[in-house]
This record gives sequence, structure tokens and C-alpha cells, in this order.
Amino acid sequence: MSRRNIYLQTLSVAEALERARKVLDRDALVAAETISTEEAAGRVTATAVHARFSAPPFHSAAMDGYAVRAEETFGAREDAPLRLVPGSGCHPVNTGQPLPEGTNAVIKIEDVVPQADGGLLIEAAAFPWMHVRRIGEDIVATELLLPRNHQLSPYDIGALLTAGVWEVRVWEPIRLVFIPTGDEVLDFTTRPTPAPGQVIESNSQIFCALARTWGAVPRRLSPVPDDRARLRAALGEALHGDAHVVVVGAGSSAGSKDFTRAVFEEFGEILAHGLAVSPGKPSLLGVSREGKLLVGAPGYPGSAIVCFEEILAPLVAWLGRRPAPERPRIRARLARKTPSRLGSEEILRLAVGRLDDGHIAVPLGRGAGMLTSLTRAQALTRIPADSEGLAEGAEITAELLVPASTLARTLVHVGSHDNILDLLADELMGLAEPLRLASANVGSLGGFSALKSGAAMVGGCHLFDPQTQDFNFPFLRRYLPDLPVSVVNLAIRDQGLIVAPGNPKNIRTLQDLAREDVRFVNRQRGSGTRILLDHHLREAGLDPRLIQGYGREEHTHMAVAVNVRGGAADCGLGILSAARALDLDFVPLAAERYDLVVPERLLEDPRIQTLLDLLRSPVLHRKIAALGGYDTRLSGRMMREGMGLGAA
Amino acid sequence: MSRRNIYLQTLSVAEALERARKVLDRDALVAAETISTEEAAGRVTATAVHARFSAPPFHSAAMDGYAVRAEETFGAREDAPLRLVPGSGCHPVNTGQPLPEGTNAVIKIEDVVPQADGGLLIEAAAFPWMHVRRIGEDIVATELLLPRNHQLSPYDIGALLTAGVWEVRVWEPIRLVFIPTGDEVLDFTTRPTPAPGQVIESNSQIFCALARTWGAVPRRLSPVPDDRARLRAALGEALHGDAHVVVVGAGSSAGSKDFTRAVFEEFGEILAHGLAVSPGKPSLLGVSREGKLLVGAPGYPGSAIVCFEEILAPLVAWLGRRPAPERPRIRARLARKTPSRLGSEEILRLAVGRLDDGHIAVPLGRGAGMLTSLTRAQALTRIPADSEGLAEGAEITAELLVPASTLARTLVHVGSHDNILDLLADELMGLAEPLRLASANVGSLGGFSALKSGAAMVGGCHLFDPQTQDFNFPFLRRYLPDLPVSVVNLAIRDQGLIVAPGNPKNIRTLQDLAREDVRFVNRQRGSGTRILLDHHLREAGLDPRLIQGYGREEHTHMAVAVNVRGGAADCGLGILSAARALDLDFVPLAAERYDLVVPERLLEDPRIQTLLDLLRSPVLHRKIAALGGYDTRLSGRMMREGMGLGAA
Repeated sequence: MSRRNIYLQTLSVAEALERARKVLDRDALVAAETISTEEAAGRVTATAVHARFSAPPFHSAAMDGYAVRAEETFGAREDAPLRLVPGSGCHPVNTGQPLPEGTNAVIKIEDVVPQADGGLLIEAAAFPWMHVRRIGEDIVATELLLPRNHQLSPYDIGALLTAGVWEVRVWEPIRLVFIPTGDEVLDFTTRPTPAPGQVIESNSQIFCALARTWGAVPRRLSPVPDDRARLRAALGEALHGDAHVVVVGAGSSAGSKDFTRAVFEEFGEILAHGLAVSPGKPSLLGVSREGKLLVGAPGYPGSAIVCFEEILAPLVAWLGRRPAPERPRIRARLARKTPSRLGSEEILRLAVGRLDDGHIAVPLGRGAGMLTSLTRAQALTRIPADSEGLAEGAEITAELLVPASTLARTLVHVGSHDNILDLLADELMGLAEPLRLASANVGSLGGFSALKSGAAMVGGCHLFDPQTQDFNFPFLRRYLPDLPVSVVNLAIRDQGLIVAPGNPKNIRTLQDLAREDVRFVNRQRGSGTRILLDHHLREAGLDPRLIQGYGREEHTHMAVAVNVRGGAADCGLGILSAARALDLDFVPLAAERYDLVVPERLLEDPRIQTLLDLLRSPVLHRKIAALGGYDTRLSGRMMREGMGLGAA
Repeated sequence: MSRRNIYLQTLSVAEALERARKVLDRDALVAAETISTEEAAGRVTATAVHARFSAPPFHSAAMDGYAVRAEETFGAREDAPLRLVPGSGCHPVNTGQPLPEGTNAVIKIEDVVPQADGGLLIEAAAFPWMHVRRIGEDIVATELLLPRNHQLSPYDIGALLTAGVWEVRVWEPIRLVFIPTGDEVLDFTTRPTPAPGQVIESNSQIFCALARTWGAVPRRLSPVPDDRARLRAALGEALHGDAHVVVVGAGSSAGSKDFTRAVFEEFGEILAHGLAVSPGKPSLLGVSREGKLLVGAPGYPGSAIVCFEEILAPLVAWLGRRPAPERPRIRARLARKTPSRLGSEEILRLAVGRLDDGHIAVPLGRGAGMLTSLTRAQALTRIPADSEGLAEGAEITAELLVPASTLARTLVHVGSHDNILDLLADELMGLAEPLRLASANVGSLGGFSALKSGAAMVGGCHLFDPQTQDFNFPFLRRYLPDLPVSVVNLAIRDQGLIVAPGNPKNIRTLQDLAREDVRFVNRQRGSGTRILLDHHLREAGLDPRLIQGYGREEHTHMAVAVNVRGGAADCGLGILSAARALDLDFVPLAAERYDLVVPERLLEDPRIQTLLDLLRSPVLHRKIAALGGYDTRLSGRMMREGMGLGAA
């Protein structure tokens, strides 16, 4: 099949970096500057630094006590204490003070016994230079204190000032300019409300915040529309200033409005267009005639971040002579099989928690546009270009995006989504010892699968069994026969038809779904809501094929509601809280029990204990009730088989 | 034996932290504030944040290409391509653009074959919602975006702006005031030259630089002399301001000028005085009547840093609802036996390098006043309170102070000190791929011992064997008979008597050392210089007991020179460069060969290759010669047994 290759070539990230390092002349591009030492922490020395003063600059007492001439204390023993008289050959000194003339040792204050007459007894002899810091012991004037290209630590600042080095020659910080582009983007500084077809430009602020963590100085220009002349003008202005690097946001691909590559070619040379990394492929690298680095960053936040972190961060570090930023690594077990495309490295975001002396990692949504996969991730892993993907249970190396200690304070939930989980996540973070709730929303049965493979600590489910009229237990018996679990109720919730405000199509019953003027939006197969729907359709004798939109699946209650809100559908089955959140109407159909399933072996885990305590708290029950559409009469209670909805 | 207990009590660090967390009321002390979202990276949410807008806010193209109604493409196959006509049911779209009315799928631009007449061929059908990002797929308006007490990442800033959250409620940054104290301290801002008895105050700047890395806002007051009334006034003023924490530098122990505890008692309550940690014991913790944290930090930089990092950092993190700072950990093998005092945790600084799929860690000087042990350390380890120390070769956990990747770019040298090593350290950092030289100066034989135990990659030595008139090889045969090594020359250097300017005591020969008016300063046993001296003393038939100061040992050439410079001794044996550096005179006694010993198994290590290349470079030879007192005719050459000083 003939396909258009829209990129110049496809380089690996390492190849693109090597090409840029070869072409850029950092000695010409980045200058040194002299700054006050006390402002230099984090900066990188441009020259070797030598001490001007020694430290200590004199023999000094290393302890609080009494300075003596050691030779005059010889013979002092516990059974033959020696008497010293302050003022004559024995002088009180505090730590850091110079040794008085003629003394060469210090006896610690704890080791002298003061006498009523002002004399002192010592019960052991001092030896020469005991508890004395000798001149130059730490730093000798003229000696090398720090080599060039050394990143200054807070400790170094102390050593430099002590050695009388008031100013240091350091590499200037790398200055970056970001130019957002696009006809559709709105400038966030105007606090706009997007009309259809518009989006709020925010990649520049991800960029600026990241760049600051690299020790660089970012600046953002106002957004430029998709207009070649205006992009040329903005880039020309940016290159005319003092920036070392200019980044153009979006427009780096090959759509009809992607001018970045053409404009870069006017100002210099293209080094790479198209990288073998996913997300991040439509990245563009060039060098201007002045020798400045040009970067075209993709428009999707997930792709843009890969471009920023994999390409820009190492190059900015290299320009500034710093070690490239790196993340702590852990080993983890992957919760789900994850196929990946051959020929391109994939960077996969993960929810991670510590469990059983190891870590479990649940892949998050992989769309390059998914900001929430970025904000929810605790780590990422790389699937190499020559791999077709990772198997369930695969041992992976994960690069941490959060402090390692937080993983032991993370609860990993895999299962059905409910708004109470968001409430729980917030309440858990409000505890004196905060707990993070990492949640992967894959439906009730997806949660069972994760519990089975040991990849989830908690699985949320609301599975109705028509035969027994019971919830969850019949499915646990079928899908998790060998896993001893406890089941605790989160809440009883209303499921019903979410309809437009005022219910303009007057949808009242399931039968109405088969009407020709009614468009339905469904939930995904395996979800509890879908099972409930299919049960009620069977009970009502309704053929799903008669329902317009039955095949259109969404993965959350809120997504169903958004479809109704926007008019893409007339109704969908969901929960009251989702309808209320978007000011929609709701036709109750059934109450269902939403439970949390916990493997019994984890019941003693302090995180689970904390969760169970919280679930029993009347304060939480009031907050759940305030969401609307929930009944908390069973909340926090351990469920048993056959309980159904309990007593009404 | 009766000793004075100068501290209130001795708590472990964990006990002190627990006590402080119990007494401090952080909800009353730390307020929330509202700031612009784009400035909020790194800050911590004070309340849950909900989305105002959905993302995407409309169904949008996920790829550059053509929007179609999927149902109209059914039947397209490779062998039966379907023709589409732009403008009628097929619309060009760029990534991110809204789907035109009536379409529900996007065909990628790479997957259409443009025809000469403007039509397009497709060779596969589209399915509904293919390459479409549906409304609310990422973020649904009203849903929880981030929980409270969540530290905002750069990614979060993007999600917040996209969701229309222009401002966030965050905890205010923790404000800290540091009050330096001491009659002897000089204010570094005046760029002073210390007179005898004076030191430059620099702990405040270590403190400020560290506090900034914690996301806190530090402020330093001018130094206060050791005067209770003035300390009281300064503390009162600091407590009257908006700081959450006030730190008093030095004066926290029990010397005659230590007023911090007494003054803290006037303003509030003492929580802990004296910690079971070394260095760091004289730390003081209290709480003021306003509920602010009071900290008395020790005066030694090594102790002060432990107080800052072990006590203050976790409390500042806790006040600001952040995870406490943590360091990456590695396993390493300890190069030297390290005894430690029972009853107190010891924090030991280490030089670390990667070697043989593991890490070697060399303990650095342990004095609490040693700034260079702080600046040279790549890591630290903890010796627990109930341990008497660590054995040579012990497997330890090291907490990294540098990026882990730099350890593979570190050369670990253990052995004799020479100023050329400082020159080398600087040159190695100037390479395109910089190498760090981590150096532990323990004398030539100390280096052999480290080579033997596999703890050093390079050992510098200058051991003269009087019998064979050869250097280093006779000692290698004796001390390292089983280790195949290569020996490369660093330089030939002059050893001689370092004397005061003008040589006022007219010291010309070894015999002069026995004069009654001559005070000598020696090097430590085992050092090459000491062996050289003892050999020449024997040759000259001089009894060491006749030499005043023979028992007074220093560990470096420069320290010997400093003794002569300061008048503590009239002469010492050392190298010309040390004498020159301090403007002293020099009486040459002998030339000696300073070699680097490298285990043969490491010869192929790229770091050793880099070192050997550098040692052969004529540019380096010129720089060595410029130091003075060196002859580079053998520099960089491989040495063989019996070569002595080679041809003159």
C-alpha cells in the first residue's frame, strides 16, 4: 500500500540528540558570567575555583572546654586526678575560638569536675592536639576548591564563602523562548471560555514549569495564528533576542497549517523531523544561522512533554554543562498486557503502588492528548522500538515521577468508576498521614482481573446477578473462585436514564429507547451498568438492535452525561451524580450496590485499615449523601452473600 | 567518672521529630492562599480542585487527515479502493479541529492517495469514532481534577489551565528566618579578611540554599554577637514577623557564650536539646508561644547541615504538606573499616564510584568542621546508634548527593596527595564527556590497601626503596604480590625542606633538623615523604628523637607548609609546589617519582583510558611544569621495574 511519508526521516531520540550535539557549538552559544557566591547554588562553574583563605584560619578549639598544654596534664588518672587552675595554664575556650598562646590541646567541658574554690579536676591526661582543629586542616589557601563544570551544591556555597571566594564565574543559565501557535488556541492569560472549535493554550505553561526545574529561564510569547508570515515574524524576533533556544508549539507535523518546518528552513537548517518515539513523533529539531537551537514541539500535551523531556531537557543540560535530569528507578510488575507498535519506542505512563515487597504498575490511558494520564501517573516505563509489547505480569523498570516514599502510601484501585472514589481520593489526602488513591477505571470485571493477578489492592464493582438478585458475590464466585476476599459496601446508588434538561423527548421507560427519534449512548461491555441494562432489556423483551446508539460505548458515567449534554445522544444509562454534575435530568431505573473488593491477605495492610476506617466514618457518609443519588445505609459495612440491597 | 550532662536529654532524630509534630499546630500556623495557576508548579493544593471545562470540549480530530462518516466508507479494500471527494462528505481536518457536522471518523493523511483530479482514494474502511477524540474523553467539567494536599507538577499546570482553572488555593510557602550568632563571626556581605580569631559566617548561606530546594522562603538576619540581650531582641523581632520558623545559628551547645537555649525558654518551650546523631548533637528544638518552630543549629557546618537536613527539612515538608525530601539509594561496598560510637547514629560522607557492576564507597574525613568532606561527597551512609562501626568491605546503603549517572563517570583515587591531582580533576571536568575525580588522600600505602581490596581504581604513590634505588615497584611486590597492575608516571617531583621566607634560620641540611632552635613538622607514618625522610635520616646517621616536632604529623604537603607559614614550625619535608603556593622558601633534598598504579583488569575501562590519554597530552605536561617543582619527562609513560628516575 502506498502511504505518504510526511516526515523528513525517522531518527531515534539518541540519534537526534547526537546530531544536535554535533552541530551546536555550545562554547560559542553559551557565555560565562560572574555572580555573587551566595546566589550561585545550582549554577555550574565555568572555571576552576581556588581558595583565598585557609580554614580553619588558625588553630582552634574543636570543643567547648579548657585549653591546656598537653604535656602539663600527663599523669592525671581517675584514681589520681590533676588540679587545674583557670587562668594559669588552663583557659576556658568555646568551640571555634583560637587556642591561647602556649596551649596545644582542649579538654572537653564534660570531662572536668569543677571544684567549689574555682579549681578544676581532670581524671585523664590530654594528648597534644587533642580536640584541636589545626590551621588549614579543611581548606588550604591557593588550593583547588572546586573544578570547572561543577554544579554548585548548597554545601559548596558554604565552602566558597569560608574560603573568601565572594564571586564565582559560572555558565549563564540557558534562556528559552516558547511561541504557541494555532488559529484555534486561546490565550490563557485572558481567562477565556472556549467556543466550539477553540482550546485553551496550556502547553507553554507545562514547558515553562519544566524548564525552571532544569535551571533554565523560560519565556512565553503570545500565541501566533496559523499564518506563515506571522510565524516568521515571531521567530525572527525571538532569534534576535538573547535566547539560546526557540521552541515553536504545535505546527510541527504535516497538516495543511503546519508551517514550522518551512519557517525553520528559512532561518537555518533542519536536523531532524519525525522521531521514533510514541507519543512525540512529530518533533522537529533545527539550528538557526546564529547557531541557536530550534525546536518544533507537537501540539498534543503527551507528545509535547516527550519532546520537552527526552529532547530538550538533555540538550539544555548539555548546553549548561549539567548532568541531564534523571528519575529514580524501581522494578515493578505490569498489571495488564500492553501491546506496542514495532519500530517506535513507546513511553507508557503508570499508576504505581508498593505491594508485597514489590511494586505493581497499572498502565494509564495512552492517548497523546490525555492530560489526566500525565497528572495521574506515578511513573513511566519504556517499551523498546523492537518490542511488540509487554505481557501481563512482566517485570519492568519504572522511572518515578513522585518521591519513592509515596508509593508505600498509595492505594491502587482498579475497577469501575464512581464519583465517590474522587471524594475518597480527596479525603485520603486530607489525613494526617496522607494516602494517595491511584485509580485505573476499567470496569467491574477489569477490576476482578487485576485482583486475580495481584495488580490491584482494591476493586470497585457493581455487578447485579439477575438470577440470585444479589450483587457482586455471584461474579466473585465465578471469576475469583480461589481468591479469598472481603467485600465492603461503598454505597447504594441510583442507576437511571440520563436525559436532557426538561426531558424534551419524554423518555420514561426502557421501551422508549427503541423509538426512532431517540439516540442512546451505551457503556462498554463488561461494565456493571451495561450488565444492568442488558438484564433489564431482556426482562422487557427488547432487542438491542432496535436501539440507536447501542453500539456506541463510553467508559464513564460522566462521559455518557457529556454526550447527552452536548446533544450527541438523547439518553444513556448512568448514575444521578453524573446527571446532576452537568445539570441534566434523570429517570431512576434501579438501585444498585457499589462495593469495594479487598483480598483478605491485605486486610491488615495499614492502608486498607485506613480506607476501612474512613468508609465507616459518619462524616464521610454525610459527604456521600450530599453528592446526591446515593444511599449510605450499608456504607463501610462488610457484605455477605445474599444480602442484596439489605433492609430498605 | 562523673561528667556533666550539658544537654536537657538525648533524643533520637525520630523522637525529636515526633515531639515537634505533636506540639506544633500546623493548621493554625500555615495558611492557604490563592495564586495564579501558571505560577503554581511545585506548590501544594489546600483544597480539592474541580474542572470547569471539559477536555476535549468537543469531538475533535485526533490526527491530521480527512473527516468522514464511517458508514460511507464501508467496502473500501486494497483491491477495491474507494474514491472520496473533498467537500462532499469528506473534509480535510488538522489534529485538534472539531469534527464537521455529520462526520464520525478521521482517516489519517498518510492513508489517502491523492489523485490528479483532486479526488482521494482510500484502501480501507473507517470505523465509527476512529481517530476521533470525543468530548470529555480526558476531563469532564465538574469532576475532581486534583485532590487537596497534592504537590502540583508541571503536567498538572497544563491540566488545570485546560480545564479553565485560572487560580488555585495552595498552602503558603514556609518562611524561615536564620539568625547567625557569634562574637567571632564576620558578615560575608562585607567581604572581610579574617583577623586571627575571626571566621567568615557562611552557614546561613548553606541554610538559605538548602531551604530554597525545599520550596521554602528563607531570610537571613545580620549576625548577632554573643550577647543575651541582643539575641533576645533579634529573636523577638523575628518572631514578630511572618516567619513560621526561626533558626538561630550556633550558640545551641553549652559553652559560656551559648545563650540560645536560655533565650528560647524566654519565648516558649524547649522540645529537645541534644540529639543522638553525629555530627549534629548540639541541636535545639523549641516552640514559641505563638506556635512557631524554634531551632538552634550547631555552629560546625557538618553538624549544622545534619540539623538542617534531618530535622528542619522533614518539619518544613510536614508544615507545607509535602513529602519529605529523599535521596536515591544505592548499595555500595565500603572501602575502609570505620568504627563508630555506640549510642549515636553517625552520618558518614562518602566518595563513591561505579566499579565492576557495583559501587565502591570511600569514607571521607569525619570532622564536623570539615567543609571539604561535604563538598567532595557523592553520597552518605548511616551507621545506626547500636552499631560499633562498619567493617572493610561491608555492604552498605548509600544515599546519593549527586545524580546516579555521574557515578559511572567518576574515577576513584585513593592514595598520596599531590597538587597535580587537583589539576587533573579540573582537566577531567573540562572534557566533552566530563569525568569526576573523587580523591581520598590517605598516603601511598593507604592507596595500596584500597587497591588490594578493590576499593580504588587508581592509587597515587611515591615510595622510594633505598636498597634498589627504585620507586614503587619494590613496595608493590611486597604489598600487592597477587594483583596485576600497571604503573604510569604522573611526574618527577622535588622533595625538600619547606622553610620560612628568606630561610631565617638558615636550614640547609638534614643535620640542621637536630638543632635546638629548629622545630620540625613531620608527615604521617606510611606516607612516601615520611619514608624518604626516614631513609635520609638513617643515611645521615641522625636519631629522629633529636628532632623537635618529629612526632607532630600532618597529612598533606600544604598542611606542612601552612605550619611553616604560620610559624608553628620552622621547616618540614614537602614538595616545591606547596612551598610556592604559600610564598615559602624551599631547600631541595631529592627528586622522586610520583606514579599512578592501576589494576590491569581496569586498563580497558573507558575512564582509565581517558585518564591515560590525558596524562600523555603535551598540553597537560606544560600545565604541570607551570606549577613548578615538577619534571614531566616520564609523565604518562608506563613504568617498568628498575627504571628509577630514568634518563636525566
